[in-house]
Amino acid sequence: MSRQTSPSRKAATLLYAESEHGADQLYFAGFRVGDPFITFAWRGQRFGVLNALEFGRARKESALDRVLSLEDWTEKSKRELKVGQAGPAEVIATLTRAFKIPALRVAADFPLGLALKLQKLRVKLEPADGALFPQREIKSPAEARAIAEGNRCSAVGFAAVEKLLKRATIARNGQLLLDRRPLTSERLREEIEVACLRAGAVSLNTIAAGGDQACDPHCVGHGPLRAHELIIVDIFPRVIATGYHGDMTRTFLKGSPSDAQRKLVAAVRAAHGEAIEAVRAGIDGRTVHDGVVEHFKKLGYETKRGAKGAIGFFHGTGHGLGLEVHEGPSLGRRESKLRTGAVVTVEPGLYYPGLGGCRIEDVVQVMAGAPKLLSDYHYRWVIR
Amino acid sequence: MSRQTSPSRKAATLLYAESEHGADQLYFAGFRVGDPFITFAWRGQRFGVLNALEFGRARKESALDRVLSLEDWTEKSKRELKVGQAGPAEVIATLTRAFKIPALRVAADFPLGLALKLQKLRVKLEPADGALFPQREIKSPAEARAIAEGNRCSAVGFAAVEKLLKRATIARNGQLLLDRRPLTSERLREEIEVACLRAGAVSLNTIAAGGDQACDPHCVGHGPLRAHELIIVDIFPRVIATGYHGDMTRTFLKGSPSDAQRKLVAAVRAAHGEAIEAVRAGIDGRTVHDGVVEHFKKLGYETKRGAKGAIGFFHGTGHGLGLEVHEGPSLGRRESKLRTGAVVTVEPGLYYPGLGGCRIEDVVQVMAGAPKLLSDYHYRWVIR
Repeated sequence: MSRQTSPSRKAATLLYAESEHGADQLYFAGFRVGDPFITFAWRGQRFGVLNALEFGRARKESALDRVLSLEDWTEKSKRELKVGQAGPAEVIATLTRAFKIPALRVAADFPLGLALKLQKLRVKLEPADGALFPQREIKSPAEARAIAEGNRCSAVGFAAVEKLLKRATIARNGQLLLDRRPLTSERLREEIEVACLRAGAVSLNTIAAGGDQACDPHCVGHGPLRAHELIIVDIFPRVIATGYHGDMTRTFLKGSPSDAQRKLVAAVRAAHGEAIEAVRAGIDGRTVHDGVVEHFKKLGYETKRGAKGAIGFFHGTGHGLGLEVHEGPSLGRRESKLRTGAVVTVEPGLYYPGLGGCRIEDVVQVMAGAPKLLSDYHYRWVIR
Repeated sequence: MSRQTSPSRKAATLLYAESEHGADQLYFAGFRVGDPFITFAWRGQRFGVLNALEFGRARKESALDRVLSLEDWTEKSKRELKVGQAGPAEVIATLTRAFKIPALRVAADFPLGLALKLQKLRVKLEPADGALFPQREIKSPAEARAIAEGNRCSAVGFAAVEKLLKRATIARNGQLLLDRRPLTSERLREEIEVACLRAGAVSLNTIAAGGDQACDPHCVGHGPLRAHELIIVDIFPRVIATGYHGDMTRTFLKGSPSDAQRKLVAAVRAAHGEAIEAVRAGIDGRTVHDGVVEHFKKLGYETKRGAKGAIGFFHGTGHGLGLEVHEGPSLGRRESKLRTGAVVTVEPGLYYPGLGGCRIEDVVQVMAGAPKLLSDYHYRWVIR
């Protein structure tokens, strides 16, 4: 197994993965299958090997040029390799012989166990050094539309949140009440996720966290929400029809904000606007991130990492978005060149236990000039 | 990288995966993280290496005994290995030195690219031949309850279907109507998935397919549903709180069934009952499956695989269920010993284009005697 940086012209590209969550496989095969299956690209054609359960659907719904029967190729493998059982390794070995494929280019996340079995069967593998499909980073107009559709679903979620917060009342103990029951993170999340589902997207791990909970950026939020506290709502739904994600964040507050809260939100909002302006083709994502870091520092917002966690601005400014919620390029501490057509989130945030957390997130497509906004929701955050 | 069948006593178990869909990682770490992270088991303790974003939550919510800071270990790796950048390979290499771990046992689906980098850093890997955690197949009482909870959500979905089919009327062209609009597979699926979500589970790829569409067992169903046709509804939701799945199927018909449809459903129902009775500890799953095949053959239901797909009974009788929808053991053509505590689906089906498809699926836990039912919904299928 020799490592090389660029694909050999004499190598086919091989995938063995499911395509529900396996983004490369979904990108390549163009349809969803819950269990791992074999696909390969060879001489300009896309091949897939599917079992009887998926065969008919593969022919109708997939992007594969040729669909082969797993049962047939399993039988053929048993005969040719003279073995009693044939699994994916034997089928792949038999395919490489039948199609006269000299080597197979595979992704860095190709399963080690299968690679070792293929090695034993003398199949030559060439692990890709970077992404298997670097072109996945550059989104076509159809892909940009699919991401914008995901963000439309996020926006439907924010509208549901605003409606509930408007209807909510404030109890004497400071908790929010809705229909005489405490308005909890869980209730907010359920209504967001139902709204997304009805809009055509599945939203998982939706964040609806208030007060100090919002200072742990990946805490989804639990229990009663309180008045006069910042509530971070981060919705990253996956559109059912296409598999592409939206990803947006807004911060709300029911009641009356303090001056410190107003300042915090204004600082994040300004950083967010500046960062979006800084995004363009040819720039390094790190430059955009450094600008946000500098912006917060100038305003006196300190960032510190301690044993109990971190405060201030301690995550990246953004990440690529598409078939995965986190993909390339990045707006963070690593170098990452922004190319025309890439789609990234822009999501600065500040987190101080006691005061609360604020994050504002939109999605843009990188252009030669000003980036194209692929998300759309207003920034009014105080709900009386 | 030597292969061995049993874990070395001197090897730690290493995982590098996300735990949203990575079932081994979720089983081990006990909490959900969307991006890959390092965990390992060493001298009876569970370790995890998490970044600042996940650190606090890992301490509060995970099953890890010790949570290490990714940022700290990255800095330590750069210093000790004298490199400018340190990724997961460098961090793992530094950990093995610090903890004096002689070798690392990894799963068959461990990423090849990372394995090659570790090899270069002279870290010894021992790929597991079978499952990394074979004990995942045997469900504890808490796990069985979590699966039963998943099936309760499936049942909530069937109740939603029945309610809609009862309310539906039959148009002159034979299509089902609800609120003056055609009742489609899509509308049925949306209501099932909303009902599941409100019950606490996410249901993806829910099947609600009628007529000939139901003869392609993985076709989820599209377009208007028709009266007097068999409608297969297969709901396999994932409980949000635990990550465990339910998986149940019922077949419905709105209107009046033909004699051939009645016979088909009765044959599947009988096979389903016999298969459940056959499940017990020590039996081979293949024996249960062969019984179903034999049952259908005796009744004259022919199974054929052709170029355009298959008819009859052409899938397995069942599969293990837990953190994954498909896991071990299996009730199919392969040998697969059933052990006490394993949880399997039992789901015979028959599919004949023109006549339609029928599948009935429940979930049982393997016992020394009669298996324990972990799913509960009635079998009335004709809705007038």
